[in-house]
Amino acid sequence: MADTISFARGAPSLDIVDVDGLRDSAVAAFTNDPGGVTGYGTSIGYPPLRRWIAEQHGVQEAQVLVTNGSMQADAFLFSTLVAAGDPVVVEKPTYDRTLLNLRSLGADVRMVSLQTDGIDVDELAALLQSGVKPKLVHIIPNFQNPAGYTLSPDKRTALLALAAEHGFTIFEDDPYRHIRFSGEDIPTMIERDEADSVVYASSFSKTVCPGIRVGYLVGPKPLIAQIQKLATNTYISPSMVSQAIVHEFCASGAIDRSIETVKAALAERVQALTTALGEHLPEAVYQAPEGGYFMWVTLPEDADVDALFEAVKERGVQFVKGSDFLLEGGHNMLRLAYSGVTVDRIDEGVARLADAYRSISGAPAAA
Amino acid sequence: MADTISFARGAPSLDIVDVDGLRDSAVAAFTNDPGGVTGYGTSIGYPPLRRWIAEQHGVQEAQVLVTNGSMQADAFLFSTLVAAGDPVVVEKPTYDRTLLNLRSLGADVRMVSLQTDGIDVDELAALLQSGVKPKLVHIIPNFQNPAGYTLSPDKRTALLALAAEHGFTIFEDDPYRHIRFSGEDIPTMIERDEADSVVYASSFSKTVCPGIRVGYLVGPKPLIAQIQKLATNTYISPSMVSQAIVHEFCASGAIDRSIETVKAALAERVQALTTALGEHLPEAVYQAPEGGYFMWVTLPEDADVDALFEAVKERGVQFVKGSDFLLEGGHNMLRLAYSGVTVDRIDEGVARLADAYRSISGAPAAA
Repeated sequence: MADTISFARGAPSLDIVDVDGLRDSAVAAFTNDPGGVTGYGTSIGYPPLRRWIAEQHGVQEAQVLVTNGSMQADAFLFSTLVAAGDPVVVEKPTYDRTLLNLRSLGADVRMVSLQTDGIDVDELAALLQSGVKPKLVHIIPNFQNPAGYTLSPDKRTALLALAAEHGFTIFEDDPYRHIRFSGEDIPTMIERDEADSVVYASSFSKTVCPGIRVGYLVGPKPLIAQIQKLATNTYISPSMVSQAIVHEFCASGAIDRSIETVKAALAERVQALTTALGEHLPEAVYQAPEGGYFMWVTLPEDADVDALFEAVKERGVQFVKGSDFLLEGGHNMLRLAYSGVTVDRIDEGVARLADAYRSISGAPAAA
Repeated sequence: MADTISFARGAPSLDIVDVDGLRDSAVAAFTNDPGGVTGYGTSIGYPPLRRWIAEQHGVQEAQVLVTNGSMQADAFLFSTLVAAGDPVVVEKPTYDRTLLNLRSLGADVRMVSLQTDGIDVDELAALLQSGVKPKLVHIIPNFQNPAGYTLSPDKRTALLALAAEHGFTIFEDDPYRHIRFSGEDIPTMIERDEADSVVYASSFSKTVCPGIRVGYLVGPKPLIAQIQKLATNTYISPSMVSQAIVHEFCASGAIDRSIETVKAALAERVQALTTALGEHLPEAVYQAPEGGYFMWVTLPEDADVDALFEAVKERGVQFVKGSDFLLEGGHNMLRLAYSGVTVDRIDEGVARLADAYRSISGAPAAA
């Protein structure tokens, strides 16, 4: 089998991780604050990092809880707010792990269509009008996983109004915001929230590295205090070592350089990906993302992505099937993650994908 | 108020943490395995550390799951094995967080008396004979928290026999084993287990440092595989950075030097503590521990530890009340943690404790 080219995992290739900066940050952490780094600390997180995050968001420290990765933050939030049978709205499609965890909790998961400018707020409004009272509406506003789409400013306004009117919490799950390589940054919903309707989560996986496992929640103080108790009982405190390294990485400015590196590489990869798709697989329909890790691809209606998955695996290429991000459907859709594939491998990966597609559809090769 | 002397927290003072060794280990981790350290890894843990742990225990790697601290391991185990209403046996007294978490799960917690050589196996046998069918029997075998007592070899044999006969799981919760400063090491139950009756947990909090938050479970392969799925859904993977630092600390031999430092300091502190109690508070009854962090102190029957707690707090001294480790009783008992108090402060701390005791009991000062 040919060497593997994986468009499956939403993770950075090693060439865009600042390993030297991380090593320097680790040295600085143990040197500058040995007691804080090696001691238990508290479940609220490493205080200097928590303070840095609060300043970034313009909120009080008591509104921030730092966790071992943002999935852990999600898990705490869901187990605090969502009980079995509770309606929860998610985007269609949405992140497969979110879908899995909400279903494990027994939530009544309602998917609302995602458009290229974000969730269909009219469809959501109709659902709310029909009497469904969601506890939570989960939104990935920037460069959504899996679709790569971004929620427009107008739709953010509309969502805030719906939340205030119907009394649900918007869970603004925003790990990709800082990885924008084209277009203009859009203000978050939490910074415009005047009704304590929004809980915000983010992560340093995309701006520092995934293996550090540092994420966080920002929300109303009483909710954060409640989740802090749950965190204490679960693990006493999150890794002070990991968080102190992230803090040094942020405070030293290494994070800004890291973000520039990541953005430049991802912009180049999206360019290579769209060029390769145009050449090898012109049937593919997509909107090129302005940031983040993912591109959502729709193939012709009669395409069988299950079969494509197997055929391309034989050719050493991996992706995630669209159906993994949906409760039903998605048979002709797939997610391509370009974060882990260096630019010199993208054309080859897409060529193999196109070859596999021809092999199962019997269609002639393009061009 | 006088400077605070805290016998409350089971945490090491900074002077016995090898900060330089940790910094060197961090540098080595980022240098030797940048991809493994910075990438997501998997929920099973950082593979080289997992392998090192498996070798230490003489088990297969598939029997080991590394977590963000051993409390997280406990939480995974409890939520996998214990449902509301399930009987669970714990020692009387036992670790307050374990008690809290089992009660939060709605377990039917049964406490069985702890003797100076470990849990009263006759009392446990009688409970089992009465028809109680525990899912789990939680045992802290070495230098128990809060009592400092160690389970004898004969009682380990008896527990394994009871587990095989009655079909319960022994949860051998063993973070203090390597911190033995007198007497002989006793083989673990898991290494003598022939019936897959034992799940073992430990931690690097006492041998490396708490802020690194690395603990682990060892158990039967199917159970570990089941918990791995739960771990994946909870946080994708634990901190690779923390675990890789621990791995370098272990592989380089720094851990052995760290353990020697900790043991020497703790032995000296126990000596100082017993000397000070003999001098200032001869009413105190205790068994001096052969390892670990804690000493359990029983005062005369008419002592009021709630009042003592307040009186000594005014004098700048903290401890944990015995009642925190029990479902009921313990009004004249307390836990003294000597791990966080340097030897030069112990006499002063005990003198203040004795002074507070005299102030509330009206008894004359000793000597």
